[in-house]
Amino acid sequence: MFQSFEVTARPEQGPPRLDRLRAELQAEGLDGFLVPRADAHQGEYVSDHDARLAWLTGFTGSAGFCAALREVAGVFIDGRYRTQVKSQVADVYTPVPWPDVTLPDWLKQQLPDGGRVGFDPWLHTLAEVERWGEALTDSGIEMVQCANLVDRIWTDQPAPPMAPIKAHPLEFAGETAGDKCTRLAAELREAGHDAAVLTQPDSIMWLLNIRGADIPRNPVAHGFAVLHDDGRVDLFMAAQKLSDLGTHLDRHVTVHDPQAFLYALTQLSGRVRLDKTSAPQKVADALGDRAVPGDDPCALPKARKNAAEIAGSAAAHLRDGAALVELLAWLDNQPANSVTEIQVVRRLEELRRRDNALQDISFETIAGTGPNGAIMHYRVSEDTDSRLQDGHLLVLDSGGQYLDGTTDITRTIAIGQVGEEERAAFTRVLQGMINMSLLRWPRGLAGRDIEAVGRMPLWLAGQDFNHGLGHGVGAYLSVHEGPQRLSRLSTVPLEPGMILSNEPGYYREGAFGIRIENLIVVQDAPALPGSDAERQMLTWRTLTYVPIDRRLIVTDMLTSSQRKWLNTYHAEVREKIAPRVGKAANLWLDAATTPL
Amino acid sequence: MFQSFEVTARPEQGPPRLDRLRAELQAEGLDGFLVPRADAHQGEYVSDHDARLAWLTGFTGSAGFCAALREVAGVFIDGRYRTQVKSQVADVYTPVPWPDVTLPDWLKQQLPDGGRVGFDPWLHTLAEVERWGEALTDSGIEMVQCANLVDRIWTDQPAPPMAPIKAHPLEFAGETAGDKCTRLAAELREAGHDAAVLTQPDSIMWLLNIRGADIPRNPVAHGFAVLHDDGRVDLFMAAQKLSDLGTHLDRHVTVHDPQAFLYALTQLSGRVRLDKTSAPQKVADALGDRAVPGDDPCALPKARKNAAEIAGSAAAHLRDGAALVELLAWLDNQPANSVTEIQVVRRLEELRRRDNALQDISFETIAGTGPNGAIMHYRVSEDTDSRLQDGHLLVLDSGGQYLDGTTDITRTIAIGQVGEEERAAFTRVLQGMINMSLLRWPRGLAGRDIEAVGRMPLWLAGQDFNHGLGHGVGAYLSVHEGPQRLSRLSTVPLEPGMILSNEPGYYREGAFGIRIENLIVVQDAPALPGSDAERQMLTWRTLTYVPIDRRLIVTDMLTSSQRKWLNTYHAEVREKIAPRVGKAANLWLDAATTPL
Repeated sequence: MFQSFEVTARPEQGPPRLDRLRAELQAEGLDGFLVPRADAHQGEYVSDHDARLAWLTGFTGSAGFCAALREVAGVFIDGRYRTQVKSQVADVYTPVPWPDVTLPDWLKQQLPDGGRVGFDPWLHTLAEVERWGEALTDSGIEMVQCANLVDRIWTDQPAPPMAPIKAHPLEFAGETAGDKCTRLAAELREAGHDAAVLTQPDSIMWLLNIRGADIPRNPVAHGFAVLHDDGRVDLFMAAQKLSDLGTHLDRHVTVHDPQAFLYALTQLSGRVRLDKTSAPQKVADALGDRAVPGDDPCALPKARKNAAEIAGSAAAHLRDGAALVELLAWLDNQPANSVTEIQVVRRLEELRRRDNALQDISFETIAGTGPNGAIMHYRVSEDTDSRLQDGHLLVLDSGGQYLDGTTDITRTIAIGQVGEEERAAFTRVLQGMINMSLLRWPRGLAGRDIEAVGRMPLWLAGQDFNHGLGHGVGAYLSVHEGPQRLSRLSTVPLEPGMILSNEPGYYREGAFGIRIENLIVVQDAPALPGSDAERQMLTWRTLTYVPIDRRLIVTDMLTSSQRKWLNTYHAEVREKIAPRVGKAANLWLDAATTPL
Repeated sequence: MFQSFEVTARPEQGPPRLDRLRAELQAEGLDGFLVPRADAHQGEYVSDHDARLAWLTGFTGSAGFCAALREVAGVFIDGRYRTQVKSQVADVYTPVPWPDVTLPDWLKQQLPDGGRVGFDPWLHTLAEVERWGEALTDSGIEMVQCANLVDRIWTDQPAPPMAPIKAHPLEFAGETAGDKCTRLAAELREAGHDAAVLTQPDSIMWLLNIRGADIPRNPVAHGFAVLHDDGRVDLFMAAQKLSDLGTHLDRHVTVHDPQAFLYALTQLSGRVRLDKTSAPQKVADALGDRAVPGDDPCALPKARKNAAEIAGSAAAHLRDGAALVELLAWLDNQPANSVTEIQVVRRLEELRRRDNALQDISFETIAGTGPNGAIMHYRVSEDTDSRLQDGHLLVLDSGGQYLDGTTDITRTIAIGQVGEEERAAFTRVLQGMINMSLLRWPRGLAGRDIEAVGRMPLWLAGQDFNHGLGHGVGAYLSVHEGPQRLSRLSTVPLEPGMILSNEPGYYREGAFGIRIENLIVVQDAPALPGSDAERQMLTWRTLTYVPIDRRLIVTDMLTSSQRKWLNTYHAEVREKIAPRVGKAANLWLDAATTPL
C-alpha cells in the first residue's frame, strides 16, 4: 500500500524542537532562522531527509515555511492550509496568512532594526532571495546565509534518499536522450548561452530518459546537471543510484560525484543560463556574474508531449479508468453508512495495483465525504476517517504513476439521496467542465485567456471556487508540472501536446464539496466548414474515460451541446472501458453511461 | 454637419514636402526626423495645427508615425491601417508593419553606425524615449532632441486651437471640482507625492469640471496642469479660452500662461508624479530627478463613473437610441440599391441633431456596406461611397457627444435578402455579445480574465475577430477612455461605475463585416438565492437601447437563456424608445422588437 493513514506528525513534537532551535540561534548570534518546506530542488514532494518543516512544527502541507525568531515563530501557509495548520501545530507557532502577509513585511513588524535572520542558501531560490533584498532595503534587517540549523539539532534525521534509477524506454519517451540534448543545445547556442544549469529533477529525468525513486509520488532522483551548448551533459548524481542503468547513458553524459557540483560550476566559462525561480541561491553564488537569467531549457520541450508520450498517457488512462470503474461499481453496491473514506482509498489502490502496472500513486488520494469534501486538499487519516452517509457527496481525487503515463482524475459521487442544491451546483460545475472540453481557441492564448469559460456557469449563479481550473501534468513524471496552467496566473501560451487537467469545483464549507476532473491534451483543431482559413485554432483531446455521475445532473440545466457532449463522452467511455472490466462492473457501466 | 466626406489628403502632396523636410535634415546635420501622429497630449484626435503626419505623408489614420531618413521614409502603421496606407501615401513612402517591426529595429537596418535621428521632445513620451534608448544601446544610433522640422517647412500651418471652454454642470459631473481635487490630493499624500503633473486634456477637463472644443470629436481643451498635495491646481491654459467661465474655477485653481509651464516645473519641489506613458519627454526633462513614475491620478477616478454620470449616460443613450431607431425605420423603407453609405451617415447625423442636444459626433461614423463592412475602421469618402445592395450587410458604428454623456453604438443591418453564412456568423457574434451582457464575475478580475466569454461562440466555429471586445468610454469625454478595457491586453480590474463597450464582430475580407455594440456599465451584482455569501460579484447594466436585426438571427442557434435575454432586451427597447419616436418609427419598432 503506497498511501498511509497514519498521523505522521503531532503538535506536541513542536515545542521542544523549537526550544532547541532557539538555543542554536543564540549560539549563532542570529535573531531567526528560516525553515522551508522545500528542498534544494523545489519540487512539490520532499524526501524524509528534507521534511524539516513537518519535523519542526508538525505542519505537513505541501507548501509554506517557518520563520523561527527568538520570541515568535511564524508558520506561513497559503489559503489551502489555513484550517489544517490550526490542528497540526502547537500554540508556540503563529500561523501567518501567506502570501497576503509576506516574509519581509512580517519581519519588519517583528524584528528591531539590525535584526539578522539566517537561511540555508541551498533551500531558497535566487528569485526568493532577490525579493527579500528588495523588500528589506533600508529596513535594517539582514538575511544571512548559514548552515542548516535544523539539520544540526535533528539527531535522528533520515539519510538522503539513494533509490536506484531506471532507464525510461524509448517506446514511452518517444525521443532519445541524445536527440533531446542536441535539440536543446541548438537552442542554447541560438540564445547565446554556453551552458544551462539544471536543478529540477524532473527536467533531468526527462532530458536523459531516466526515472528515479528518491521521493514519494514522483518518479525522480535528486541530482543536478549542466547541459553544454554542444549537447554534452555533466550529471552530478550518486553513482550508487545509477548502477542499474548499464549503458543507457550515452557517451555525451558524464557522471560526477554530487560533491563536485559547486566546484564544477566555478570552472564553467561564458554565459550560463539559470532559472532564477528554481535555482538555489548557492548555485547562483557559485556562478557569480556568469549566470544569465532564463527559463529552464527543458521546461517547454518537456511540456509539449510528443506522439509516443500522448499515446502512452492515453493507454495509462484506459488502464486507470478501468480501475476507477471497478471501484465505482463496487461502491454503488455497498449499503449507505457502511463504508468509510479509508476503505474507499484502500479499495481503489488495490484495484489500481491489480495488474502490476502501477508504479506508485501520483499523489495522496483525496476521499472526502460530506463536509470533508469541502476541504480542497483533504488527506484522510485514522483521526478524520468518516463514514459515507446517505445524502453525502463523495469527492474522490486520485491518480496513478504508470510507466507509460501519469493520471489524475476526480469524480464526485452521490451517496444515497442527494439534495437539490447539491445537484444544481454539480450541474454547474459539469457545465464549466464541458464548456472547456468543447472549446476551440486561436493559437497564442494562455490559460489566463480562456479560464473564464470553465467558471462562467458558476459565476452566473453567484458562485465560484478558489483554485485554478487546471494544471499541467507530466509524462510518468510530476502530476503538477509547469509551465502551462489553466489559471488566471498563467500567461504561458498553450501549445499542441501540452497535457492539462480540467477540474472545476464547488465547495461549501462545513457542508459539501464537488469537483470533476479529466485530463485533456492540446491539439491542432481540424478545419470546419466556414472557419477562418488563415487562423490556426487549437482544441482538446480528452484522455480520461470514466463515467460522470448521472444521478447528480439536472438535465434541464444543460444546453443541447453540453448534453450532446456528455452523451457522446459516455458512449466512448462504455466502448473503451467495457472490455477492461468484469461482469458486475459492466452491468454498472451500462447504467452509468445511458444517454441523458 | 460635423462629418465631412472630403478626401482631405492626397498622395501627391507627399513627395514635395518630403523633399523640403530632407533639405532641413541636411541643414541640421541629421540623418532622419520623426513625425508622429500624436500631439503633446497623446490623445486619439489632433487639431489641424498638429496634423503633421497627414500633412507630410497623406496618411490620415489615428495612430502611427513617419521616420523620414535621407534615402528612405518609413510610415509605421498598425494592423488596422495596412490597406488604407497603400492608397493614401505616394511611393516615396515605405509602409512598415508596426509594431511587428519596431522603430529601433528598422533604424538599425537602415542607418549606418553613428546615425543621428531627430525628434521633437514635446511629441514623444518618456516611456517611448526610454524604450528607444534600451533598444538602441550599443547600436551607434543616437536619438537627438531638436526643433520640429515639419513646423519649419509648413508655411501655412493652421494656428493652435483657441476654442472657448465651458463649465460642466454639477448636475452631470456629480462631484465638485473642489471635492475631486481634495480627494486626489489625499491620494497623492498617501503615496508620498508632493504633486502630480497632468498632461492629458481629458484628465484636466474631468478634474476641473470643464469642457473645451480644441479638437474634433472630444470636448477637451489643450493645456497642462499641476495638482498639488494640498488640492491646489496650477492650470496652464490660454486665458482667451477661459474667458466664458466666470467664477466657475474656484480659488484653489490658479491660471497661468501656457508659456510658463516648463519654468513652473523647474520650480516644483519634492517628489512629482508623472505618467511615463503619456507625459512628453520635454516635461520629464524639466522635472529631472524629481519625477516619480506613477499613473495619472485622474485616470481611475475618472473611469469609475458616479451616479450622476451614469444617469446622464443612460439619458443620453435613450435620446441617441431614438435617433438610431428613426434611422433604421427610414432605412428599411428605402428600396434596395437606392441609398448610399454617405446618405446613411448624413441622415443619421440629421436625426441626432434634431433636438439640438448633440454637441458633436463622438467619432467619424462608420457606414460600411458589403465588402466595405470588413474594413474595421472604414471612413466613407466621396471616393469610396457605395450603394447598399440587396444581400449586403451594413455595419453602422456611430456615436454622439451630449452634455450628459458620450454614446457609441454599432448595429449590423440586413439589406434585402442576406445569405445563410452571413446569418450564422451574425448569430455567433450576437451570442458572444449576449454572453458578455449576461455575465456575472467575481470582483477583482480584469478585461483579460473575462473576454473569452464574448468570443467563445465564434471560436467554436473556427472564427474570431482581430480587435478587442470592448473599450472604456468617457462621460461627455473621449469615446475611447482607459484604463479599463475588455481586451487580452488589459489587466486593470473592472470596478463598479466603469463604462465599456461590448462589441464582438466578424469580418471576411472582400465580402462582409459584422459588429454589434452596446455600451454597458459595471455594477455590483445583487445576491441570488444560493450564491456564495462572502463573494462579491459584479455584473453589467446595459445603457444602449436599439433593436438588433431579427432578420439576421438564426433562432435555433441560441440557447434558451440567450433567447430570453434578447426578448427581454427588445421589450425594454420598445418600452423606452417608443415614446421618443414618431408614428412610422413606432410601427417599425413594434415589428423589430417582436419576441423570437
